[in-house]
Amino acid sequence: MTTPAIPESHLDLVNTPTVGVLSTLGSDGRPQSTAVWFLLDGDVIRTSLLTSRQKYKNMAAHPKATLFVLDPTNPFRTLEVRGDVAFDEDPGLAFFERIVRHYGMDPDTFPAPRDGRVVLTLHPARIVANP
Amino acid sequence: MTTPAIPESHLDLVNTPTVGVLSTLGSDGRPQSTAVWFLLDGDVIRTSLLTSRQKYKNMAAHPKATLFVLDPTNPFRTLEVRGDVAFDEDPGLAFFERIVRHYGMDPDTFPAPRDGRVVLTLHPARIVANP
Repeated sequence: MTTPAIPESHLDLVNTPTVGVLSTLGSDGRPQSTAVWFLLDGDVIRTSLLTSRQKYKNMAAHPKATLFVLDPTNPFRTLEVRGDVAFDEDPGLAFFERIVRHYGMDPDTFPAPRDGRVVLTLHPARIVANP
Repeated sequence: MTTPAIPESHLDLVNTPTVGVLSTLGSDGRPQSTAVWFLLDGDVIRTSLLTSRQKYKNMAAHPKATLFVLDPTNPFRTLEVRGDVAFDEDPGLAFFERIVRHYGMDPDTFPAPRDGRVVLTLHPARIVANP
């Protein structure tokens, strides 16, 4: 199966630093959503995640998730990336520092926890761009 | 069980017309997200929905959903309402016209389909307000 691509018309929503909404599935069968930073990396979406977070536990149990991005200037122009997730180590926190820099912050002073971080990769299975 | 309430600190996100993100569960086990208008109605969230939409089919099969709202001026200030859903008829499209008016549009000229609409009620089971 080929990985679906984000259409050119909506690449701005992933190439400019925009806050996305990551939805996972809780053990009670209800979706759970949080605001996340993310990066397009080739044809996958990546973010940095603390393993202490509920969303990590949700995805460890049910490795599927959806990233949803609203255009901040037109919230009905949207991009939805549904997919399957995998986790990797983040040696030296190289990925964490990359995403912090992408969002215009300095990794040396950015006040986020550094311990217990992994890289979440979302492999797109279906992409819906509106309108 | 009492219904959890939206904290006063975050009521502005539901009382001003803000676009929310509604997530449901698809038959492939992946969350699905769309941009929606919504209203707080007493202690429940309501929106108007076409039964032809995938999200309607998802919730008919799996009656759970989550509404997520980002503060447009500070996207890490968020409100998440996880809950159980129910559907009702919308006689005379009274609810549809109410929500269209809430978002500052004229129901007589608003170019949305009118046939096949139902009212979706989200009964909150858990509410998470950040920060």
